[in-house]
Amino acid sequence: MSEKIYVFGHKNPDTDSICSSMVMEKFDKNLGLDVEAKRLGNVNKETQFVLDYLGLEAPDLLQKVEEEQRVVLVDHNEFDQSVEGIENAVIENVVDHHRIANFQTKTPLYYRAEPVGCTATILYKKFKEENMTIDKKEAILMLSAIISDTLLLKSPTTTDDDRKALEELAKIAEIDVNTYGIEMLKAGTNLDDFTEEELINLDAKRSEKDGKKFVIAQVNTVSIPDVLKRKENIERAIEKEIENNDLQLFIFAITDILNSNTQIIALGKETQVAEKGFEKALEDNMMFLEGVVSRKKQILPVIDKNM
Amino acid sequence: MSEKIYVFGHKNPDTDSICSSMVMEKFDKNLGLDVEAKRLGNVNKETQFVLDYLGLEAPDLLQKVEEEQRVVLVDHNEFDQSVEGIENAVIENVVDHHRIANFQTKTPLYYRAEPVGCTATILYKKFKEENMTIDKKEAILMLSAIISDTLLLKSPTTTDDDRKALEELAKIAEIDVNTYGIEMLKAGTNLDDFTEEELINLDAKRSEKDGKKFVIAQVNTVSIPDVLKRKENIERAIEKEIENNDLQLFIFAITDILNSNTQIIALGKETQVAEKGFEKALEDNMMFLEGVVSRKKQILPVIDKNM
Repeated sequence: MSEKIYVFGHKNPDTDSICSSMVMEKFDKNLGLDVEAKRLGNVNKETQFVLDYLGLEAPDLLQKVEEEQRVVLVDHNEFDQSVEGIENAVIENVVDHHRIANFQTKTPLYYRAEPVGCTATILYKKFKEENMTIDKKEAILMLSAIISDTLLLKSPTTTDDDRKALEELAKIAEIDVNTYGIEMLKAGTNLDDFTEEELINLDAKRSEKDGKKFVIAQVNTVSIPDVLKRKENIERAIEKEIENNDLQLFIFAITDILNSNTQIIALGKETQVAEKGFEKALEDNMMFLEGVVSRKKQILPVIDKNM
Repeated sequence: MSEKIYVFGHKNPDTDSICSSMVMEKFDKNLGLDVEAKRLGNVNKETQFVLDYLGLEAPDLLQKVEEEQRVVLVDHNEFDQSVEGIENAVIENVVDHHRIANFQTKTPLYYRAEPVGCTATILYKKFKEENMTIDKKEAILMLSAIISDTLLLKSPTTTDDDRKALEELAKIAEIDVNTYGIEMLKAGTNLDDFTEEELINLDAKRSEKDGKKFVIAQVNTVSIPDVLKRKENIERAIEKEIENNDLQLFIFAITDILNSNTQIIALGKETQVAEKGFEKALEDNMMFLEGVVSRKKQILPVIDKNM
């Protein structure tokens, strides 16, 4: 078996995946393990804001692992979201807050999952359980992850454990969570650099029901009108996507993370599914959904049920 | 969803599966949950010794679960070792010390696994983390499970965590662990009352690799020759089991718990897997494995790797 243990989050890493792998590295080093945080993809703008704030470098990119490589997974477990070669690695530890699927090991391991809003919330509890000191740097990495995953505690995935962890981490970090958090979230919502084709694919989830294929894509923003300036081109990109992939419905959800609302653009043969599901008419292909921020909890189930 | 949550260990329950489900019931009740321990099969003699010692009844038998039944698994995770209907149950929590395989959920959950010798050792840590009082009854349930799974700390699966837990639980229980432990282990090794069909199913773990099904069953004894007196009938029972369940390999491990050795009987189309894995020829379908006592650490990985 290899010497060094690699710790990493999922592909297309978000702030939780990067920050939690860095914090987990620290946790395991405290236990005397020879570990190194890695990343499985580019650092996004929100995460870069956190790293810049702390004057830290991102972990190195990991493209694949050799057989028998010892690894620790954070913020994911499904092999298709993990590194190339994961099937033949030795998974020693997992810390995660997702369902478990497409995952297996050959040997016993540490596995810690909790149905909370963020992996860093579980890491915070692990530090407490082991009576390990949390320094300012780790506190900011963890609170950034929690802010990102819970949209400043506004997402319906937020639990009391997340609230408590964020509160106590903010004390250690001596930081105003709201000011810092809004700045961080804003940094992640600059969509100007993306073409419309890229925009509708940035975070697109494909689904199927009774043979009918549909896509729900989502972008976060601090200004819905800003995104809607490009509505015509976005619609053209969506129409092309519908045609190329034989989709019945494409929902593009533009989520205002400051006010916790979502504007959707719906196109395709089955747009009445959205109208029926949300009990609201589309106007100009658009519908405004007050209080809706979570695709997983608030959009997908409604569409899936009415499709 | 159902009201009551069921907690149970694996099929063919051993002392850890029964005792840990009873202790987990207590733990979850302390958290205010409406839980009830269940068992997935007959109570073995060793476990009955523990229950008699404490004047307790075994949990009720659970034969299958309805869709959406809320469940907590202890001491196992693989669906083929679990209750009928587990695929459509809502698994809310798992506490286990085995590898993870043939397991998946639709939603996020609590999962706590550690590569220690016994589930009860993890439960002991959970009580400590939550600052919950452990009373004498729970202490004896937990220490019995640890003695059983680690063969009084002699199995190579034993970790420092198990040693520490056993030591501290013995203090709470005010019990001499060696005297109690040997009595308990002996109570479990009287195999005379069992038919050969029962013997090979007393503690049988089913597994699958690349579509090939195999079983590794284990019995503990203080005299291997005593068990081998029934070899012919045991082999006949195994052959029937292989035919009825379309198995590629059946390994029956007879473990001498006083001297820490194992005699295996291997039958099926894939017996060469055992020969290759242990680098030893089968003679008369048998192979003597010196120093081998742990199915999980010393037998299953060898078979799984070579299957």
